[in-house]
This record gives sequence, C-alpha cells and structure tokens, in this order.
Amino acid sequence: MKNYIKHDEWKIIEEGFHREENRITESLLSIGNGRSGQRANFEEKYSGDSLQGSYVAGVYYPDKTRVGWWKNGYPEYFAKILNATNWIGINISFDGEELDLSKAEILTFYRDLDMKSGLLSRSFVAKLSSGKEVEVKSKRFLSIADQEIGAIRYTVKALNFSGKITATPYIDGNVVNEDSNYDENFWIEKATQINGSVGFVYMETKKTAFQVCTGMSFRACLNGTRIEPQLSSDQKEKYISSEFTVEVKNGDELCIEKYAAIISTLYYPETKLQNATEKALKRASEKGFDKLFADQEKAWAKRWETSDIRIEGDVAAQQGIRFNIFQLNQTYLGDDERLNIGPKGFTGEKYGGVTYWDTEAYCLPFELGTSPQMVSKNLLLYRYKHLPKAIENAEKLGFTDGAALYPMVTINGEECHNEWEITFEEIHRNGAIAYAIYNYINYTGDQDYLAPYGFEVLLALSRFWSQRINWSEEKKKFVLLGVTGPNEYENNVNNNFHTSYMAVWTLKYTLKAIDYLKREHPLLYEDLVKKLKLKELKETSRWKKIIKDMYFPYDFGRKIYLQQDGFLDKELIPVSQLKPEDRPINQKWSWDRILRSPYIKQADTLQSIFWFEDEFDKESIERHFDFYEPLTVHESSLSSCIHAILAASIGRQEKAYEMYLRTARLDLDDYNNDTCDGLHITSMGGTWMAFVQGFGGMRVRNGQLNFTPFIPEGWNSYSFRLNFREAHLEFKMDKKQFSVYNHSKVNMDLVVHGQQYHLPARKELTIK
Amino acid sequence: MKNYIKHDEWKIIEEGFHREENRITESLLSIGNGRSGQRANFEEKYSGDSLQGSYVAGVYYPDKTRVGWWKNGYPEYFAKILNATNWIGINISFDGEELDLSKAEILTFYRDLDMKSGLLSRSFVAKLSSGKEVEVKSKRFLSIADQEIGAIRYTVKALNFSGKITATPYIDGNVVNEDSNYDENFWIEKATQINGSVGFVYMETKKTAFQVCTGMSFRACLNGTRIEPQLSSDQKEKYISSEFTVEVKNGDELCIEKYAAIISTLYYPETKLQNATEKALKRASEKGFDKLFADQEKAWAKRWETSDIRIEGDVAAQQGIRFNIFQLNQTYLGDDERLNIGPKGFTGEKYGGVTYWDTEAYCLPFELGTSPQMVSKNLLLYRYKHLPKAIENAEKLGFTDGAALYPMVTINGEECHNEWEITFEEIHRNGAIAYAIYNYINYTGDQDYLAPYGFEVLLALSRFWSQRINWSEEKKKFVLLGVTGPNEYENNVNNNFHTSYMAVWTLKYTLKAIDYLKREHPLLYEDLVKKLKLKELKETSRWKKIIKDMYFPYDFGRKIYLQQDGFLDKELIPVSQLKPEDRPINQKWSWDRILRSPYIKQADTLQSIFWFEDEFDKESIERHFDFYEPLTVHESSLSSCIHAILAASIGRQEKAYEMYLRTARLDLDDYNNDTCDGLHITSMGGTWMAFVQGFGGMRVRNGQLNFTPFIPEGWNSYSFRLNFREAHLEFKMDKKQFSVYNHSKVNMDLVVHGQQYHLPARKELTIK
Repeated sequence: MKNYIKHDEWKIIEEGFHREENRITESLLSIGNGRSGQRANFEEKYSGDSLQGSYVAGVYYPDKTRVGWWKNGYPEYFAKILNATNWIGINISFDGEELDLSKAEILTFYRDLDMKSGLLSRSFVAKLSSGKEVEVKSKRFLSIADQEIGAIRYTVKALNFSGKITATPYIDGNVVNEDSNYDENFWIEKATQINGSVGFVYMETKKTAFQVCTGMSFRACLNGTRIEPQLSSDQKEKYISSEFTVEVKNGDELCIEKYAAIISTLYYPETKLQNATEKALKRASEKGFDKLFADQEKAWAKRWETSDIRIEGDVAAQQGIRFNIFQLNQTYLGDDERLNIGPKGFTGEKYGGVTYWDTEAYCLPFELGTSPQMVSKNLLLYRYKHLPKAIENAEKLGFTDGAALYPMVTINGEECHNEWEITFEEIHRNGAIAYAIYNYINYTGDQDYLAPYGFEVLLALSRFWSQRINWSEEKKKFVLLGVTGPNEYENNVNNNFHTSYMAVWTLKYTLKAIDYLKREHPLLYEDLVKKLKLKELKETSRWKKIIKDMYFPYDFGRKIYLQQDGFLDKELIPVSQLKPEDRPINQKWSWDRILRSPYIKQADTLQSIFWFEDEFDKESIERHFDFYEPLTVHESSLSSCIHAILAASIGRQEKAYEMYLRTARLDLDDYNNDTCDGLHITSMGGTWMAFVQGFGGMRVRNGQLNFTPFIPEGWNSYSFRLNFREAHLEFKMDKKQFSVYNHSKVNMDLVVHGQQYHLPARKELTIK
Repeated sequence: MKNYIKHDEWKIIEEGFHREENRITESLLSIGNGRSGQRANFEEKYSGDSLQGSYVAGVYYPDKTRVGWWKNGYPEYFAKILNATNWIGINISFDGEELDLSKAEILTFYRDLDMKSGLLSRSFVAKLSSGKEVEVKSKRFLSIADQEIGAIRYTVKALNFSGKITATPYIDGNVVNEDSNYDENFWIEKATQINGSVGFVYMETKKTAFQVCTGMSFRACLNGTRIEPQLSSDQKEKYISSEFTVEVKNGDELCIEKYAAIISTLYYPETKLQNATEKALKRASEKGFDKLFADQEKAWAKRWETSDIRIEGDVAAQQGIRFNIFQLNQTYLGDDERLNIGPKGFTGEKYGGVTYWDTEAYCLPFELGTSPQMVSKNLLLYRYKHLPKAIENAEKLGFTDGAALYPMVTINGEECHNEWEITFEEIHRNGAIAYAIYNYINYTGDQDYLAPYGFEVLLALSRFWSQRINWSEEKKKFVLLGVTGPNEYENNVNNNFHTSYMAVWTLKYTLKAIDYLKREHPLLYEDLVKKLKLKELKETSRWKKIIKDMYFPYDFGRKIYLQQDGFLDKELIPVSQLKPEDRPINQKWSWDRILRSPYIKQADTLQSIFWFEDEFDKESIERHFDFYEPLTVHESSLSSCIHAILAASIGRQEKAYEMYLRTARLDLDDYNNDTCDGLHITSMGGTWMAFVQGFGGMRVRNGQLNFTPFIPEGWNSYSFRLNFREAHLEFKMDKKQFSVYNHSKVNMDLVVHGQQYHLPARKELTIK
C-alpha cells in the first residue's frame, strides 16, 4: 500500500522524485496506443533502479519453458511480449558532465500523466557534481491518432552557468527481458542506418522472425529558434545516435523534438517496412509536435466521450475510475482481431501481452459498453481464429472428434502455461469463452454472430465437455473430476461447482444455438453440420443426458452449492479471524496450507452465480454470498469486482462500495505490492463492471437495459455512458435522482428498478 | 525391453558391442564400493554416445532449482551427487593413430561384470583406419577391501604390425553433469601435480566446498616384463597426464596397471587430504593389481556369504536376483551414517545420491536380513541426525512445537524436491520413517534404540500428524486433507487411506513407546520429557482422540477401504482393458488424464495393508488385492514387489511370481526403457523383499521368524540366508521340502506354516 501519488481528477501525479518507487511510477505513468506501449522511463540516462520497457503489440518470442518436473502435454515455450527497441533515449551532458538523476542532486521534480490526452510530462531542476544547475522539461506521447508515431519534446535550460550542452538522441535495440527464462537475448539486428538526424534500428526476433523497424528524427531549437547544429552520428550494434553540441549562456533553453516511428511486420510486408518507417517519420516531422499533439487530444476526447465516468465529491475515486478506463483504452483499440488484452498490457514484462480468460470475463463488458460493436466482435474473433489450435491442444490431452480446449495463456492460440493444475485443469476458461459469445449476442443483439463464428466455437466446447465429464456409478450422476476453478487456491478438485455449471450451461446454450440455426438458417445449419461433422442426434442426446443428470455438490443444511466435493471438511474459520501477519496468505503460507484452507482467492462459486444470477432467487444469492464472502481473501485483482456487483444486487451497498474501492485504486495505491511489475490491466475491466453493473445495477434482459442504481454515501453524484446497440446513453445518479439522456437518434425502452420506461431520441428521463 | 545381455549365474555379459545400448550397458556394468562408483565407461577415448560418470559418496552440489512457477516453501536448490574427476582414463595411439572404438572397425568385443568379485572386464579386437589390428583387454574394480582405491589392468597387443604404441594415463577433472539445471560447472581446481607416473587432481565443489583429491600411479610391462619408459607429463586445467611410447613388434603385448585413489574431505581434514591420497596410492602400487584383487575377492566372498540367494533351474532368475543383491551391496556398505542409498546409487546422475523414503520402505529390510545390525542402525541414525532440519522444514510450512516433516528428497536433511504435490503433500514419507523404527526394533529386538534416538523422532512425527489432521464438522471425524499417497498418479487428494493409516499408526506407536519408556526407563523418560518439552497429557489426549475418531474412506458395498475420497467416481476400467498403445500411461497420457483415471502407479492402499497385514484378515486382504491390483499399472519400479508379497500371502503363487519377474530383471532387461540413466538401486531392495517375504513368506512376529515358503513352478530349488539377531540361518526350498540350517552358535525357535519349531545351533531342520 503506497500513497505518494497525488489525487487529481485527470492527472496521475508524482511530486518530488520517489526513487524507491521508481518502478511503480514507471508502471503507473505508462503510455500506449494499442500498437505499442512505453513505461515512464527517463529519456536521459538513469543509472538508478528502473525497468526499461518498450513493447510492440503482437510481437512475441517463444521463450523456452522453465520447468522443474516435466509432464506430458506441457508446452515447449512461453510466448512473451518482448522488451523492444528503446525509442525515447536522449542523453544529455554539460561540458562533458553527464546528466543522470541517480547521481545529481534533485532540487525539484515533478512527473505526471494527463489521462485526458495521454501525455506524459516531467520537469525537474538538478544540481550536478560540478555545481551546474539545470532545468529539464519533457513531454511525450504515443499517438492514438497515428498509431505508428511517438513524439517527445525535451527542453534543457542552463540555470547558473554558460557552457556546452551536448545532446545525443539515439535508438537502441540492445534491450533484454528481465524475465527471460535462460538469460537469452531475443533480438537480432537486421540493419541500422543514421543519416543526419534521421535514423533507424531494424530488428528481428529470433525464432518467430517478427521484424520491427524503429526510426527517429529530431530537430533542435535554442530559446525558441530553430537551429541546425553540426551532427555527429554513431552506429554500433543495434544502435544509432546523432549527437550535437551547442554553446549556451546562463538562462538559455535548448529544446529537442524527437519523433519516433515504431512499425512491425504485423502491418507491413518485410519489403515495405523500412519505407513505411521513413514515411511515418516524415509525416511526424512535417506535422511537428504541437500538431501531432492536437490530433492526439482530439482522438482522446472522442474516446472519453463514450467511456468517461464522472464522480463528484470524491477526487480519489474520480482519479481511480478514470485511471482504469484510460489504461484499458490505451492498451486495446479493438481494430485488429489478432491482438488481445494482456493482464499487464504494455506496462511490464510479467504475463506481458498474453491472453487469459480475463479478456472474456472482465474486459469484454467494458468494450461492449464503451466501444463500437466491432471492438467486442474482434475480441471474439480472436478466439474463433484460434479454434484449430484449441482443437489441437485438446487432442494433445487425448480428446477427439473436434473437441477444443482453449489455452489458459496464449498469444497465438497455443498454450504457454506450464503448471499441470492450471494448464490441464483450469478448464472453466472454456466456459468463459462460451459465455462471452452469449454475452456479446445478448448485449448487441447480433444473432448473426452464431453462424459462421459462434456456433463453431460452441460446438467444439460442448464436445470437450461431453468427453471430459464421466458417469459415476457410485453417484449415479455425471461428474467432472480433476479440475481447478477460478479460485486457484484449490487444485485438482472434483466437481467444482463453477466448472460443472459452466459445462452444463455451455451444453444447454449450444442446444439452443442448434435450435435457432435450424429454425432461422436451415441451409446454413446444413452446411455447418457437414463442415463440422456433427452427428446431431448422437452428440446432443449425450449432452441432454448430462444436462439432466449432472452432479453438483450441495449442502442441504445450508442450502448452498459447494465449491467442490469435500469443501465442508475444511476448518471454516472466516478470513476476519486470520492474524494480520498471515496476510496475504499467498505470500505467507506454503502452498499446501493454502490448498487445505477454505480461503478463496477470487470469486468461484460466486462467479457462476454472478453470471447466471437470474437462475437463482435473491435469498439463494444471499446465502451463497454470506457463505463464501467471509472466506474470500481477494488475493486476485479479479476478485472484488464480482463481489461488489453481487453485494449491490442483494442490497449490500456498503459492502459493494468496500469491494469497489479494492479494485478501483489497486494500482494507484499499489495495494498488492506488485505495481512495479506493471499494471493490472484486465482487472480494470472488472472495476468498470463493478461501477456500471454494481452501482448502476446495469443488466441486459430480453434485449433491454435494466438498472437498479444507487450512490455510495460519500459521493455527490456520478455519471457514466453506454453504447447500447444503436443508442448512446448518458446516465447520471445523484442523491435525489437517476437520469438518463439519450444522445442518439433512436428511441429506447429501458427498465429502472423493475419499472419499464420509454426514452425517445435526444430526450432525458429522470427518475426520482 | 531389451534382451542383449547374456544369461549367466554370476556375470553380466555383453557379447559384441551394442553401440546403441552403450548407456544401458554402462549403467548395468557399473562398479562401486560404497565410497565411490563408476559407470562402465571405456578407459581409452570413445567419441561415441556415452554417459561419463564417476561419483563420490556424500559429495554434492546444491544446483539452483529450476521451477516454472514458484511456490512459497520451495527449496532454493536440488542437491546433486556430482559427476566427479575421471580416474579411469588411459588414451592409446598407434603410430599417432588414436584408438577410438567409435571410429575403428570392431572385430570382436566382449564386456562383463563378475558379480562374485565386482570385477569389470572388457576385451576387443579392433581394426583401425590404417589397417592396424589390435587386441585390448582391460579389467578394473573399485576395492571394497580398501575403499580408497581403484585399480585397472589394461593390455594392448599388436596383432598385425610393428610400430609405436603411445599410452596416456590421465586424470581429468573437466567433467560436467548432464543434468545440470543451468549448464553450470560445479567444480573448481584446487591443485594439480604430476611427477613421473604419480599425479593428482585436487578439486573442490563450488558452494559446498567439498574437496576431492584423485590420484593415479601406474606401471608398464612389455610381454610380461616390467619396463621403465621415458615419461612425458602434461598438466592443464583440472588435468594431469603422463605419456609414454614403446616400440612393439607384431604380437607384442603392452600392459599398464593404473591405480587410483579417490579421497574426499568427508574422511580427512583438508590439510591431510593430499597426504592421504599419496599414502593410498603408495599402498595400492606396493600391493599391485593381483594382490589388491585377491583382497577384493575375499571381501566380496564374505559379503556373499550372508546375502547370496541361489536359484537352481533358472539361470535368468539366478542372474537377476544376484544382480540386485550385488548392486545394493556395492552401493551401500553401511559403515557411515552420513550416507544413504540413492534411487540410482552411483550409476547415473538422475536422482543421483539423494535419499527418498525408498530407503526405509525397500532397502532397510534387505539390510536387516543380510548385513550386520549396525548397518540398519546407521540408516536410522541418518534420519535421526536430520531431525533438526526436518523440524525446520515443518516450521517453514507453518507447523510448530517441534513437529517434523522429513524431506521427500534430501542429501543433508534439507528438502530438495520442488513440486508442491510431492514436496508439501507426499507426507506419508513421515510414516515410512516411523515404520522403519518399528521394523528395525521388531527385527533386531533392539528396544534400546527408542531412547535416545527413536523416541525423539517418533514424537516429532506424531506432533506433525497431530497438527496436520483437522476436525471435520461435516463428517464429525478427523480428516487429513490435501495429500499425495505413494500412488503419485493422484495429487492433492483428501483422506488418502495409506497416509491416514500411517498417521494414526504413528500416534499409536508413539503412545506405546511412551508406555515402554515410562515403564522400563523412567529416568531416561523424564529427561526426554524435559528435553523435548513434552506436555504428555495435553499432547497424547489429542492423539487419542484422533486415533478414536479418524476417518477412513470405506466402501460398504465392496467392504474395502478406498484409496481416497471420491475414488469410486472414477471410471473403473481394469488396466487389462487399456490399449497397448496407451501404455505406459505416464509416457502416453497428459497428466490430468492420468489423475482422473483410476490407475495406480504403485502400491498405495496395499502398501499399508502389506505393512500392517496382521491387522487385516485374509479375506479382507484378498478383497483389497482384487480391487486394486487390476487397476495398478506398476509404472514405479517400487510397485510389483509389494504386490508380489501380498499375492504370495493370499496364496496367489502365480501372480506372486509374475510380479516378482517384473522387479527382478527390471534393469537387466531395461523394462522401463530408462536403464540408460542409471540403475533402480532402491527397487532392488524390493526385489529381495519379494523373494524372501514373498516366496519365503518371511515375517517377524513376537520376536520370532515365521515362514510360509513355496517355490515357483519352473525352479528346482532356491536358497537364501538371513541374519536374525545373534543367528545366521540358511534356508533352502525345493519341490519336496523346506530346510533351515542354523550356522550360528545360538539355538533358534521359528515358525513354519504356523508350526513352531526348535532349531539348535549348527543343526538343520527339514520340513517336508
């Protein structure tokens, strides 16, 4: 838990340099534009502790798996988004004395990230060993208006001396991943070139042979006037620079504008990559920093227009929710179905850039609510395109006939994770992928997604469940053995309620999809039957048997479903009775102790109850919540959002707010002590859900938006916006009323607190 | 499955060079003397596939753990017995042409290991590229009479040429472990020296700082006459050699006798190590090869006298059982309680030299039956001395008040294993360590072992179980959650019968030990109470509650104990119905599939039924055997021995023989396709058990030996010997009768087929 970040409605502010927290600040103030991301590293040399990080979307390396005891079926590699060529570097020296904040005396320091425009700013006054005092101001952004471009404005002012300032803008491909398994270097140089102020470093990844060309150009001004100093270029392995020296007098200010182009073979063929880089550099340098930034502001304003959430009366909460929305928006723009949302986005190496079920469970709702429909569809298509690999993956584990098991962690559809209890057993992810199809169609009404895409995935998932479930002669029921639920503090359990529920639900939903297709698109259905070799009667009759006779562990006394077989054998001591020194248990306890404890890492039984809320009555939800919440340690960043929504749905507003707080400022306050590794990007989707589905009580039922809004006590008002089908709506809740403004041209019907309302286009609805 | 090894009563024979199987032969023909071991690598250069291996007892390196996903409590390192300085090397060339069987044409080749004397012999005729034909004969052994010494006699004969033979005896410390986790080199050079034909390489292990000094000296003869050729020495990093060249005529024979001394700081202080090496070399060279070998023969004859098993009418079976006994005897001599028996002994790197519960469960009975009592006691003292580390280990996992968890894998008492399901959960090993104390006392009658040693261990183990077991409100019973039984094809199960049974039995046995000590040694007991801070009433009253109310999973229909909770939910298809291409499942199936299958890797429920046979009636044993045996895949080398003994005990003689065959020639026939990595040394103890306790039906009850012997159909007769307390007995079984000869000076009472017999000293008893 840290609290050095200043509260502000739009900015993330560090005042004074927090040397010890530098890695945290570097994560928090990361910038990105969906195509690349950059931690808030300094432009000039810094020899202190720092995690240098530049990342390029979709460019990964299959790092050889590190494993103690190999199991059949483990993947050979873990795909990693790589630390890529450093494009921000500008080294500075004064009469040969290098500027390095690790060595200088820092007189003032300020760094902020303006979320309104995605601009990172930094300014400081430093006193060097020689006694020279200098002021530096830098601004930089990665453009979301022109995603190939990054821009930096860097000014240096002599405060108490006259002399020489030497500036060395450079590009450096000599970067490594700190988390490389065997200290490998992942990149090889293809070419470097430097010509005056324009140069590039052209790199290729080993094995995967992605190419990334990173170019720079720059210009310099002295006291606001463009200068053309003598340039001295240098070219080393994976490195180019162009250095110049200017004579300054006391009070003079040197300004460097550096433009970077970061372009990969994901978007250009190899033959055109260098040319594209040159073009982008030219574009950037012709426009110049100010014009590029004006485009950036405009593009961000548009993004905020549909996604902003405002809170009045609580600056920390306002900053928190905007930070979540901002980071999600700069991680994923949704225009490329080959990309996805990594748990840490482009803000660190750990889990960097790989895809978990987080996307389907926690990020899709955010995109559905705030982005154009195509963005959510692209998230679904990502999995659709990986279906052949998911089928291969299942075959490796002994499944047949087109059954699919999606990977727990992936970047290209192949499994990367190598812990048997997760890799092979945390199979509820298959359920999340099925649920995402339902969720997308339910929200958007886009039934056409079923054929050709959705149904093919659903069928492969149902085939998997049908084979994975077995008949228990003992129980005279179908059982699902050897699984790990979302609560990863239990491994290899039998009949995990959530997993079994998702399995059965997937079978039911696939049957419904078959009915729908047969009814609405009989010819299309015939084609699918042939293509997918569906033996309808044989396959569906087993599904129906399973649906009818599936076993779910149940406590008849408490009238609750049990997380898994044997759960009640544990010592059910509530989390509140644990000693503080035992928390968090995942840092304090050995794994076996965690496993035999009743403590729950994140919503598990409650995850399906959340997803299928309408299949449980309120009393039942209350019973489950009251049983599981006291046992939940929320040591996953994905936990408290689900609890917040459920608490809200059963009227526990204080609990909902408490749970919301844990997710909303998770990274800003470094709640889990790991923000240094990068931000919890996917859990930010959960924060949005906790807000809109928790406080707003938003649900979609029968094609209509439903709300049961309330406002946390300390707030004056809040507002949020939703894209819903053809409409765009703005919701505002204050102490007195809930109002909805229909920004769109279509009339709307919606339900608030169970009451049906009609809301014409361009009109407002107010409910006291 | 291989069958290129020739059948012979005393020898392990390779006729013709089996290049592809070289690593297997190298394992099978390994020599050792308890202090060091050597694979059957060639003396002269061999550039073909080979696993070079020289191992020194107790000299280990903490290789940095390789783990994919770290868990709290994992050890930082895995202690490995290292591949040590190569002492066997003698390179040979003819007129500058190097002898290398990988490149020469091999005209004849023969290699054997004589188990009677631990002598490895090799002879071959090879034709070099130049057309030169040479005959080579080599013999070598590691002396069990003088454990610091190894000796080689190496002769080279020119068959069709005259010219120069150059011989280069050397010692080389430039060795690596193939299984090094991070390709590290584990050794540093302390010193090298070469002076004429005498030299040494003095090495130290990194981190652990063990020092090993390996010396050589040699002499040469031409056609039987000692020669003193000009020596040319070489000294490189970690390497010394002394080379000489002799002119030979066609038919001449050059003989080199090379002596090695291998001495570590386990036995000498650093200051005396080099001196001890010199002394040993001097001793060896003064005695010479023939005299040293005569001592070796004598020492082995003595060892065989108490441990040999003879089988008439089946050479393969005779070879098999002797191979098991021989390898056990050359791995562990029992004179040093710091040493133990590694699963692969000194025959390979894998699991090399580390200790598992194998020792207590499978090797102790062999030592009890065939070695002086001190040898078994030393195996127990090994664990006693590790008790403080076992208590530390338990503390790491959250246990308190002197509870001990012995490591799954260790060399110095610290845990080395890093798979949570094994490291933290395969805790039945604690039970095996308690059982070994019982087994030792029961066999030897040495009640005095309880205080000061045995009781201290038992108490720490009981304290562990008492804390590890919890009360289930649901079951109103005590339960044992989250464990892995001996059947490692189940992980993290609840209420594994074997583990729970061992836990309860340990509590009972500790209570008995307390009673015994209070009654027989009240003052000693008082001291122990103080030393161990035993709160007798409080601690034992919880134990008694557990004993009374422990839960064991039971099937009331089948009237059998279940391996664990939920076992009957599995699809109980017998192993016999699996497709051949699915076997062995651990190579063919992914781990999750194995886990949810009913297939059993090695005796689990049957392990406790074997150990506590007298607590089950015969019908109950039959029911359990008939339920579990058809589900057992015996993919552990430790499995079939237990099934053999149980089958014998319920009169299933054919089954017993079938099971015996799987263990007896496991390595000789490379049954599991892994003999290349080294031999299954600890399972050899199981083979002995299967013989003596299976065919012989040997048990110890009320201080008396009991037998229910039978003879497998194809055999004419068999005999085995037992040390039992003050007696030494020889047993012979043929088609007609069972006879026992009492070699000792004490009278004996024993039970055969339930009948009590008296056998005076030096007399024979014959039972038709």
